[in-house]
Amino acid sequence: MKKLIKNGMIVTATDAYTGDILIEHGVITGIGKELSAEGAEMIDAAGCYVFPGGIDPHTHLDMPFGGTVTADDFETGTIAAAYGGTTTVIDFCLTTKGEPLQQAVDVWHAKSESRAAIDYSFHLMVSELNDRVLAELPGIIENEGITSLKVFMAYKNTFQADDGTLFKTLQTARQEGALVMVHAENGDVIEYLVNKAIDEGNTDPIYHALTRPPELEGEATGRAAYLTELTDSQLYVVHVTCAEAAWKIEEARKKGLRVYGETCPQYLTLDITDLEKPEFEGAKYVWSPPLREKWNQEELWKGLWNGSLQTIGSDQCSFNFKGQKELGRGDFSKIPNGGPTIEDRFSVVYSEGVEKGRISIHKFVDIISTQSAKLFGLFPQKGTIALGSDADIVIFDPSVKRTLSAATHHMNVDYNPFEGMEVTGEPVSVLVRGEFVIRDKQFVGAPGRGQYLRRKRFGDAARPLPGKAEVGGGV
Amino acid sequence: MKKLIKNGMIVTATDAYTGDILIEHGVITGIGKELSAEGAEMIDAAGCYVFPGGIDPHTHLDMPFGGTVTADDFETGTIAAAYGGTTTVIDFCLTTKGEPLQQAVDVWHAKSESRAAIDYSFHLMVSELNDRVLAELPGIIENEGITSLKVFMAYKNTFQADDGTLFKTLQTARQEGALVMVHAENGDVIEYLVNKAIDEGNTDPIYHALTRPPELEGEATGRAAYLTELTDSQLYVVHVTCAEAAWKIEEARKKGLRVYGETCPQYLTLDITDLEKPEFEGAKYVWSPPLREKWNQEELWKGLWNGSLQTIGSDQCSFNFKGQKELGRGDFSKIPNGGPTIEDRFSVVYSEGVEKGRISIHKFVDIISTQSAKLFGLFPQKGTIALGSDADIVIFDPSVKRTLSAATHHMNVDYNPFEGMEVTGEPVSVLVRGEFVIRDKQFVGAPGRGQYLRRKRFGDAARPLPGKAEVGGGV
Amino acid sequence: MKKLIKNGMIVTATDAYTGDILIEHGVITGIGKELSAEGAEMIDAAGCYVFPGGIDPHTHLDMPFGGTVTADDFETGTIAAAYGGTTTVIDFCLTTKGEPLQQAVDVWHAKSESRAAIDYSFHLMVSELNDRVLAELPGIIENEGITSLKVFMAYKNTFQADDGTLFKTLQTARQEGALVMVHAENGDVIEYLVNKAIDEGNTDPIYHALTRPPELEGEATGRAAYLTELTDSQLYVVHVTCAEAAWKIEEARKKGLRVYGETCPQYLTLDITDLEKPEFEGAKYVWSPPLREKWNQEELWKGLWNGSLQTIGSDQCSFNFKGQKELGRGDFSKIPNGGPTIEDRFSVVYSEGVEKGRISIHKFVDIISTQSAKLFGLFPQKGTIALGSDADIVIFDPSVKRTLSAATHHMNVDYNPFEGMEVTGEPVSVLVRGEFVIRDKQFVGAPGRGQYLRRKRFGDAARPLPGKAEVGGGV
Amino acid sequence: MKKLIKNGMIVTATDAYTGDILIEHGVITGIGKELSAEGAEMIDAAGCYVFPGGIDPHTHLDMPFGGTVTADDFETGTIAAAYGGTTTVIDFCLTTKGEPLQQAVDVWHAKSESRAAIDYSFHLMVSELNDRVLAELPGIIENEGITSLKVFMAYKNTFQADDGTLFKTLQTARQEGALVMVHAENGDVIEYLVNKAIDEGNTDPIYHALTRPPELEGEATGRAAYLTELTDSQLYVVHVTCAEAAWKIEEARKKGLRVYGETCPQYLTLDITDLEKPEFEGAKYVWSPPLREKWNQEELWKGLWNGSLQTIGSDQCSFNFKGQKELGRGDFSKIPNGGPTIEDRFSVVYSEGVEKGRISIHKFVDIISTQSAKLFGLFPQKGTIALGSDADIVIFDPSVKRTLSAATHHMNVDYNPFEGMEVTGEPVSVLVRGEFVIRDKQFVGAPGRGQYLRRKRFGDAARPLPGKAEVGGGV
Repeated sequence: MKKLIKNGMIVTATDAYTGDILIEHGVITGIGKELSAEGAEMIDAAGCYVFPGGIDPHTHLDMPFGGTVTADDFETGTIAAAYGGTTTVIDFCLTTKGEPLQQAVDVWHAKSESRAAIDYSFHLMVSELNDRVLAELPGIIENEGITSLKVFMAYKNTFQADDGTLFKTLQTARQEGALVMVHAENGDVIEYLVNKAIDEGNTDPIYHALTRPPELEGEATGRAAYLTELTDSQLYVVHVTCAEAAWKIEEARKKGLRVYGETCPQYLTLDITDLEKPEFEGAKYVWSPPLREKWNQEELWKGLWNGSLQTIGSDQCSFNFKGQKELGRGDFSKIPNGGPTIEDRFSVVYSEGVEKGRISIHKFVDIISTQSAKLFGLFPQKGTIALGSDADIVIFDPSVKRTLSAATHHMNVDYNPFEGMEVTGEPVSVLVRGEFVIRDKQFVGAPGRGQYLRRKRFGDAARPLPGKAEVGGGV
Repeated sequence: MKKLIKNGMIVTATDAYTGDILIEHGVITGIGKELSAEGAEMIDAAGCYVFPGGIDPHTHLDMPFGGTVTADDFETGTIAAAYGGTTTVIDFCLTTKGEPLQQAVDVWHAKSESRAAIDYSFHLMVSELNDRVLAELPGIIENEGITSLKVFMAYKNTFQADDGTLFKTLQTARQEGALVMVHAENGDVIEYLVNKAIDEGNTDPIYHALTRPPELEGEATGRAAYLTELTDSQLYVVHVTCAEAAWKIEEARKKGLRVYGETCPQYLTLDITDLEKPEFEGAKYVWSPPLREKWNQEELWKGLWNGSLQTIGSDQCSFNFKGQKELGRGDFSKIPNGGPTIEDRFSVVYSEGVEKGRISIHKFVDIISTQSAKLFGLFPQKGTIALGSDADIVIFDPSVKRTLSAATHHMNVDYNPFEGMEVTGEPVSVLVRGEFVIRDKQFVGAPGRGQYLRRKRFGDAARPLPGKAEVGGGV
Repeated sequence: MKKLIKNGMIVTATDAYTGDILIEHGVITGIGKELSAEGAEMIDAAGCYVFPGGIDPHTHLDMPFGGTVTADDFETGTIAAAYGGTTTVIDFCLTTKGEPLQQAVDVWHAKSESRAAIDYSFHLMVSELNDRVLAELPGIIENEGITSLKVFMAYKNTFQADDGTLFKTLQTARQEGALVMVHAENGDVIEYLVNKAIDEGNTDPIYHALTRPPELEGEATGRAAYLTELTDSQLYVVHVTCAEAAWKIEEARKKGLRVYGETCPQYLTLDITDLEKPEFEGAKYVWSPPLREKWNQEELWKGLWNGSLQTIGSDQCSFNFKGQKELGRGDFSKIPNGGPTIEDRFSVVYSEGVEKGRISIHKFVDIISTQSAKLFGLFPQKGTIALGSDADIVIFDPSVKRTLSAATHHMNVDYNPFEGMEVTGEPVSVLVRGEFVIRDKQFVGAPGRGQYLRRKRFGDAARPLPGKAEVGGGV
Repeated sequence: MKKLIKNGMIVTATDAYTGDILIEHGVITGIGKELSAEGAEMIDAAGCYVFPGGIDPHTHLDMPFGGTVTADDFETGTIAAAYGGTTTVIDFCLTTKGEPLQQAVDVWHAKSESRAAIDYSFHLMVSELNDRVLAELPGIIENEGITSLKVFMAYKNTFQADDGTLFKTLQTARQEGALVMVHAENGDVIEYLVNKAIDEGNTDPIYHALTRPPELEGEATGRAAYLTELTDSQLYVVHVTCAEAAWKIEEARKKGLRVYGETCPQYLTLDITDLEKPEFEGAKYVWSPPLREKWNQEELWKGLWNGSLQTIGSDQCSFNFKGQKELGRGDFSKIPNGGPTIEDRFSVVYSEGVEKGRISIHKFVDIISTQSAKLFGLFPQKGTIALGSDADIVIFDPSVKRTLSAATHHMNVDYNPFEGMEVTGEPVSVLVRGEFVIRDKQFVGAPGRGQYLRRKRFGDAARPLPGKAEVGGGV
């Protein structure tokens, strides 16, 4: 069925204009003034922004971690995402050493296919890169369209890969057209500091932050950039939290290296003092890397403004305070890492960024959606409002003022890290491939309607050729 | 009359898709698949890119300089620009100390209004900033829509302003919403070096470059950035030629300063050795700042890639070799500065940038058109292909290979600095406000059809509001 | 007459050992354990440090400024210096445009020769560098031994030289083996800011600091370093006050440029809040460049520690609060610039630096004495305790604790900027060329006993040759 | 027996003067003009420099490596060192995981005590830092006076320690007053690159350099500096070879970190092209880190000049070309690493540094002797010519020109990496504690006369106190 979104102000990473959007078969087929189409459903967007749907490049749904599992799975997580204006998520498929990659991918498909309410794709975690893995990897990239590989420089004795493995992954990625993602913290030193803190009886949540100082993130970020330079490869640094790391990315880009950075709404708004909240409440604010001193926030905003940082991920990884976060009472190292931000990512960045004048509205669209599509091979199917793109659309009312809260959020978790934050603006309706998922602020979609997205290789689309079937993006 | 541009690959700073564009009353009113419109002229763009018209933010047409006047005026210059894919130029209106600003603006209107074949606007040169000028300036900004002010840090005893004047101009610009442009070279030291060289009998064209070393450009760029920081203002550095200057802009942007940089096709492709050509031919390559050692070119490309540089200007300022450049035989300081690049700016950057893989096609559109529109208050009327924007459009055939030459160019000047350069791609047809200016590679427009553009203030459009009449861009 | 200084701990920029020093004819002729010499006067230094006499490379004695003249002349100033442990000063000889350099030098000889109680030399201010000056300069350097030239980048319309003049001075200095000294602040912008502040009624002393922000010092320092690079010359930046400037020197030295920096005790201990003292008392703290925010102090100490800064000058330039500083009531721009620090320079740096663990005792000797001797062509006659060097010696008791105060100081001025500061250590006795000037904390010298020092050219002594009569220092 | 060294030009890190030195009981007891002493042996040094004996802070004598053992032991090595002007070496005591530290130290004592012809001390290698080692370490530091600990960031699977161990070592060093030394290269990546090269049949010596790119040294150096910052400790980076690493040290020092750097004569004069010599001769030039591109040399000299690098070590580690280096034919990874430079370290740096005007003669003394004494707790017993210091003295004739060669050197090895290099200057006579070791260019000492030196803790001597028995140095 056709739809017409009327009179909204359509905003992309470049443009802003008032007009109508025609949607047919889930795809945008026309943009015009006073469009009409026989039998089309009319959707009034007057007074609203019409944004491309948000793309969250960094989620952990239904993920086992430290003997428990995240509170949100692909159903509750993607419904909450949709409420928040996000229409695509890319989740991390965890692999196990010694087991086939395909097996891990199959597990992730099983977790998601009947549950996801919005479109989704997977990154692949790389924990070893022996001959077996090297032999299997090209097939996974080709057949599953998984064109991004995640390497951990932290979490010693579990996820952590050594520098040789990171180097080899970068080389392989260059050959195969994949983008390597790193969690950049020095895991060896953190391991030592954490053990020492526990030994010395320093077990409160604040010690989570104190045992992971920003220098260890800056160090690892710079190290990964060096290896990227040596391999002439490409690198995406996930969840950049601090100036020390942002500056390293900036240095790399100054040299012309294809190094990219993601930050998260929590690092732009919360800070290390939140970990000191009494009654163990600090545990709610345990992310890795941790929240930093407040001054880092402005440096991250600067990085988004000047282009050293490209994207916003939620790093959604939710655990209930009761029963889950509480596992770390008496030992901060047992607090499950992560928090619920998939729903508020879009609005927090809009409100703190655009409303407060730190970034333009086009930059907002770019970091919340377009750049993730381009970097991860989803463009132009996703990430923009343009002819031929999927009709993934957010109708956003910038006049609403509201307060974020666990009382009203849709995530399956008992707290909200942004509790009490006033934001301006709210997604009113959200469409995925032309179908309403949220309508007038109510979920009207269904689990399982989300589609799995096979992604293109890195950089494939830097110069789309006229007359060729497939068009693209570029980085 | 309506027009339909059919089946081209439409490319903007963000998007690329195949489709049709409907033009009514000179404005884009529809974008769709297989559009039809009663009575519309059909234009086939299959196999071509459809770009927004190029915007050249830096031209000197019909400009007196050192006892002579540029070879191209608003007629020949804008026709050549159109051939090259440029649909808007912003020229510099020179003022004279002691005379009313309006008088200078009127002179520039007189030069252009019956001659310009494409749309145009003016920047205003500031050589003094006394009470009289301060009193007149707000009216010029408001009434003439001249929202950019040029200050020279070089050309001692003629154009050069001292640092106090630059500072005051920045302060004023901040209040009035204007963007300050600087020619950043240390004029005091250059004056000394030039005189010394002449005194010592070093009179060949190469001494033009040797008496203006890159350190003096880097120095002045850094100085201007400091003053921008102190005034919390905004700065646009024209014609950045070298790494030393590009790095200073990068440093400033790292601090979050609103400092922007422009480079030119000549600095991306030609180098200091061109000034050593025999038979005084080096004079053809005399620009200020001068061409640099070749390695700087990759640093400029990196700057465009990573966003430290934002735009490409031609710095068009043409003088015939015979009779004009020759004025400097025996004394390089008398060689008229500048060269003819208005026509080839677009194609040189496309060919060297996109075809050679240095930048994506979206970045190309951004630097050749969109960013100039956004920075100089022309967006979204100009600088993009979007609903409601002027139908300034270039249909560009990327399959053509051709050789640049004075024998075939359309500028009114007897040489071409890119003589013999092979480029890929050529503008086939060019429209300004929906009217053909170039059709099938022939000029079909007319002098005087170009319109003067009153521009918006700097940054006005960073957050266009839905429901408001005027929409905008942002920086 | 012979003297023997017994049992002190002799400390140089490299060494520290307990021993005896034999002095004959004003020169050190022996260093040994339990030395004896027939007829020698014995001086007990047990429990004390025996330092080379301090060298103050930056004083303004008997200097006219803004219609008044400094409170201290060569008599009171050098006596106070001696009390404080300083045995040599280098004062600035001001020149007047249009008048012969020799005339200015003669004036300075007249001011000093019958008054100086310790040894002294002159730097020469350069305010113009026309053919006349260029012709006279080599003779001044050769005959007067004035091998350092001062250029002001600030004080518009009085002392300020333009960049062309600075450039030419650097070129000349390179040829003649002189060291160029700069006062690095952007005078054009300061002029504008000062006038604006006064116009707006902002006349209190604090506006002196607010109209000379640190960025303008950093800018000018970087600019001077660029010119030094282009001329392959050498540069000494006087009175570095802030991180912004220190970092510029560090950058220059990283490139291998011979750029050196001096800071002053006031910038290491006082800060911008002192200018806000009530009852116009802030005027006591008016220096140019001004005192800075406190955090800059640690950056200056780091610069001294890591070698980016080399020397400590007092920038002595004293004016009484009553009658002189008060000239600026109601107009901070009329407050005579400068303060009395010649006496406490040595002790303040010892106490804050060595006692507080910021620098080693050898670094202290280096910055308070040795480096000034080496940079300004006085080494090894001055600046160390070594065979053949002048017996300029300070016997310093590190066990004393005392409070600095105008009530007890010996300068001819009615306030002390360090009033109330507790310091550790005190010069007990001071000898110049083997003669007591201070003995048991009392002045026992006489005006006129100081000798004028003709200095060697810059760098002459980097490699003293064995078997040659003259030996040297090096930089 | 007393000795008098007459009429030489005595040069220290600060001073240069002509005079006589009196030596009694191996110690300097007097410095004077025309000294006489009853019964003293007279040594004529006229026309010569009299330098403090060289201190080589980095040697590997009698060291097992890869199934072989270095060609030089404590006898041949220290005799050669003496010929070259070195009077103290600090060798590395290798430890074995799981064995007591004392056992390793005892082995090293056994290797050296009857063989060393000059004074010597030991650094201690740290390969693990478990509770056993932590318990034993303070006793070793206290009793053996071993106050420097070496950690390898390279040599995976043999010497390499992980970052946690380095961190813990730095913390321990801070508590115990020891200086941590690092071999800074990323061993994980090197391991991968080496294996890959061998697998691909790239087995020639040049691949030794190509598999250890400078970025991996820069990376590891920066990483170590970060850990030093976090532990507020002190770090000495051995054998800095390239700009990338030198700049990291510079950055650290800019922050005020106590990070120090050593380079070696081979990195200042030889380069990567030496590894390409035919007939497997490139194996002679296999050091780790490897020789670099030539342009790095000037950056190292700049670092020595501006103080970012402090010392010169030889990294003496000699293997015969025949029978030892040849072990790596067909597999560069089996070439024993290292070369014979202990003898020519002093002369090469003098000739290339002082004679060629890159550094002053005082800086030469500082880097070749004084700074090593200060950093490693030997000052003022060693490292200077001053009252009370050991009479470790080099009489050096700067007029000699000679050619370095294996044919004339005194090391027990069949090649010299500086073969054919012309140098200016030669040690004529060398004394250790007042006894001739070299006299008129002949060895007159004896194995076993060298004494083991217990060293002071790091920084102990930054402020020697008058009246205390022990005096010191400082850093």
